[in-house]
Amino acid sequence: MSKFSEWFHNILEEAEIIDTRYPIKGMHVWLPQGFQIRKNALKLLKSILDEDHEEVLFPLLIPEDELAKEAIHVKGFEEEVYWVTHGGLTPLGKKLALRPTSETAMYPMFALWVRSHQDLPMRFYQVVNTFRYETKHTRPLIRVREITTFTEAHTVHTNSQEAEEQVERAIEIYSSFFDQMGIPYVVTRRPEWDKFPGADYTMAFDTLLPDGKTLQIGTVHNLGQTFAKTFQITYETDDGQHEYVYQTCYGLSDRIIASILGVHGDEAGLSLPPEVAPYQVVVVPIIFKEGAQEVLDFCGELKNQLRSSGIRVHLDDRDLRAGKKFYEWEMRGVPLRIEIGPRDLKEGKIVLKRRDTLEKEFVEYQEEQVVDLVNDRLQRITTNLKEQAWEMLLENLREVNTLDEARDTIQEDGGIVSFLWCGDEACGKDMEEKVQVDILGIQEDADTGECVNCKEKARYRALLARTY
Amino acid sequence: MSKFSEWFHNILEEAEIIDTRYPIKGMHVWLPQGFQIRKNALKLLKSILDEDHEEVLFPLLIPEDELAKEAIHVKGFEEEVYWVTHGGLTPLGKKLALRPTSETAMYPMFALWVRSHQDLPMRFYQVVNTFRYETKHTRPLIRVREITTFTEAHTVHTNSQEAEEQVERAIEIYSSFFDQMGIPYVVTRRPEWDKFPGADYTMAFDTLLPDGKTLQIGTVHNLGQTFAKTFQITYETDDGQHEYVYQTCYGLSDRIIASILGVHGDEAGLSLPPEVAPYQVVVVPIIFKEGAQEVLDFCGELKNQLRSSGIRVHLDDRDLRAGKKFYEWEMRGVPLRIEIGPRDLKEGKIVLKRRDTLEKEFVEYQEEQVVDLVNDRLQRITTNLKEQAWEMLLENLREVNTLDEARDTIQEDGGIVSFLWCGDEACGKDMEEKVQVDILGIQEDADTGECVNCKEKARYRALLARTY
Repeated sequence: MSKFSEWFHNILEEAEIIDTRYPIKGMHVWLPQGFQIRKNALKLLKSILDEDHEEVLFPLLIPEDELAKEAIHVKGFEEEVYWVTHGGLTPLGKKLALRPTSETAMYPMFALWVRSHQDLPMRFYQVVNTFRYETKHTRPLIRVREITTFTEAHTVHTNSQEAEEQVERAIEIYSSFFDQMGIPYVVTRRPEWDKFPGADYTMAFDTLLPDGKTLQIGTVHNLGQTFAKTFQITYETDDGQHEYVYQTCYGLSDRIIASILGVHGDEAGLSLPPEVAPYQVVVVPIIFKEGAQEVLDFCGELKNQLRSSGIRVHLDDRDLRAGKKFYEWEMRGVPLRIEIGPRDLKEGKIVLKRRDTLEKEFVEYQEEQVVDLVNDRLQRITTNLKEQAWEMLLENLREVNTLDEARDTIQEDGGIVSFLWCGDEACGKDMEEKVQVDILGIQEDADTGECVNCKEKARYRALLARTY
Repeated sequence: MSKFSEWFHNILEEAEIIDTRYPIKGMHVWLPQGFQIRKNALKLLKSILDEDHEEVLFPLLIPEDELAKEAIHVKGFEEEVYWVTHGGLTPLGKKLALRPTSETAMYPMFALWVRSHQDLPMRFYQVVNTFRYETKHTRPLIRVREITTFTEAHTVHTNSQEAEEQVERAIEIYSSFFDQMGIPYVVTRRPEWDKFPGADYTMAFDTLLPDGKTLQIGTVHNLGQTFAKTFQITYETDDGQHEYVYQTCYGLSDRIIASILGVHGDEAGLSLPPEVAPYQVVVVPIIFKEGAQEVLDFCGELKNQLRSSGIRVHLDDRDLRAGKKFYEWEMRGVPLRIEIGPRDLKEGKIVLKRRDTLEKEFVEYQEEQVVDLVNDRLQRITTNLKEQAWEMLLENLREVNTLDEARDTIQEDGGIVSFLWCGDEACGKDMEEKVQVDILGIQEDADTGECVNCKEKARYRALLARTY
């Protein structure tokens, strides 16, 4: 799949995920099929977050003076912010920003909400649309001007250690989510020059797309006390002192959907994890003149049985050639197809076809076991999709020992390159310049060896890759 | 409850529904408690719509030229539209509107989607935020500048009759939703001068708030072919002709939450229908020195039992006076409270207190029946809230025979006034002027009698009321 970009654009259209013809660049319409995938993914994500976060909803618009309060933060966003300047025909007294992210919407309120140490920790999240006036080439679900599925969490703590633990907890949450979607990832600490504007440090999840480029799919920021000081968020300690809080925030975007589609897809189209597939199973009756009604009846009953056990199933009884139906459902990524013809019926068999392996299986039909059978296959599909995807990522994660090797590897094979680094900013930027790709970040500490660029003592094992 | 307005504002704050201190007028923050009520209401609404609608998601921003295409429509909104004029520091070539509603975002796409009569009917909905630059006094959940919970459906049909049937179907859907929320309503056809800009006619739901003023809580519009002609939405008939489609749209807003809170609440605070209550049941252990652990253990087990049967239950084991807890949970509107003290435990009893009637009930505790018992009481609460609310509305729906009577009734009793009307626009506006309140709309045809204003033959029974 060398032309991933083209494949991705085509499949969004053919599988009716997104309509890109909306008359504003970088803003798209979620079609019913795409919306269901998004909804199922969000349902899982929310169920994980709901364990120890509270869902809230803040306004879209942020007054200019609030957005401008945290200088480092606003500098990172000022070129990308959409501004509302008029209400009706009236110029507004104060410009209003469409949120690029919600720190400056939320934190003035946090300053009102946090009173005593007993109020802490606080953990909130919201699922909202955010806006970036992207000047780069836009790409549906990957680089957009309206992010429709921004899931941002914001937490408040009394001390630095708790904030660090929350960063770890957020990494666990996102790992659990991506694991259930079968999305492989590397987690790194972003270089200083690439961290979130206003953060002490940024941890990031990147996955690898089939064209060998990485896609940032999630970030976790330790904000330290920067915003607390800007927005005066303080709590009263046991002995009546007022102290600044420590904060973290972390977010996912539409890219979670891009990665689900992009990582698992193949030449035949999408291949969806059962957890998010709008239909997990499609039943296709194979109709001949003889015995058509029996086959249809049987398929209808099977559908009802599967549906009543909670499986998302569709009976495709349209008057179309079976081959056309097969093509369509494979392209749309339905994890499991069940085919039943008159001969199968006579022989007491059903045919299962897995989307992930494209393997056909003829199994004996037993009414009391068919739900378990289907659930078992869906489980195997989930596991296999994840294993395949991890294999692909790990095969394309290559350790190198010299700068030349790094450059050659990236140019010839793409993927992710692992190398030893001194950690110095000037050296890192010099290396990015020489290799012409970005340093994703630091993966772990290194005890021995030397930096592949400056030859000083290596402090870290780090990753670099061509990125989206 | 003469000071409803004050009550409403206070309860939003005290019960932590909405924080109104966000630094933009008419834009508010949904707090965790309020968010859960909203989420539960939306869950029910979506489950009804999902039966025959597909959920989609369109961009927030609408290009100026699309918004301006339908002249009548844009005239209705032009004074209320927020405009985005800058991306970063760059003036945009084309201004972008924050959607006040989504006809002009959706219908250019519908023109691409609708091809043949086989594609129709189409029925879509989305839940989004919309914006109105309100110049009137804003009020949380009732008159806001960011509507956060706009649930708008849009349908497309081949013929006029089908569109009319869809209007009826939408009225059924909304009736079913409001019935399950226990919200009473009157449905009328809005006068010509008060219909949706661009619609052939508008049907509307109004409920009655405790201060005797009505609140519009839902609208259903038959759009005829107006937008089809503007946006060139045509379909190919069986014989290859191209015909304009017929359309309807209908929507609900944050006011559904306002009405749930406002209609059922009382001096003690909120009284939530079990369907939407964040907690349906709160278990309060009554702790004395003696037997405290046994009581706590029992309450914990009861909580687990109720929770595992799908009831949203909370165990309030905070170290606080029971009276303080009672006050708080009553104010927050939890439908059912279960109190258990050491003496109850000994006697094998539990105490149930219903929020709606504030009645206490001592019942024998039987482990295998307690779930049914609680579900039965929740069901009774649902029914009673609805009956009480309908009674209140019907008591305040008064038939009058003269204009003076109408004026006096509105001034003395508020509520809704039912009268005979000729249906003439000039007469209607004259009457609104004389009585100084709005005509809600036409409820039904009238066979006999004369118009209370102009004394011509009455054609309709209509309603008027002081409105929000």
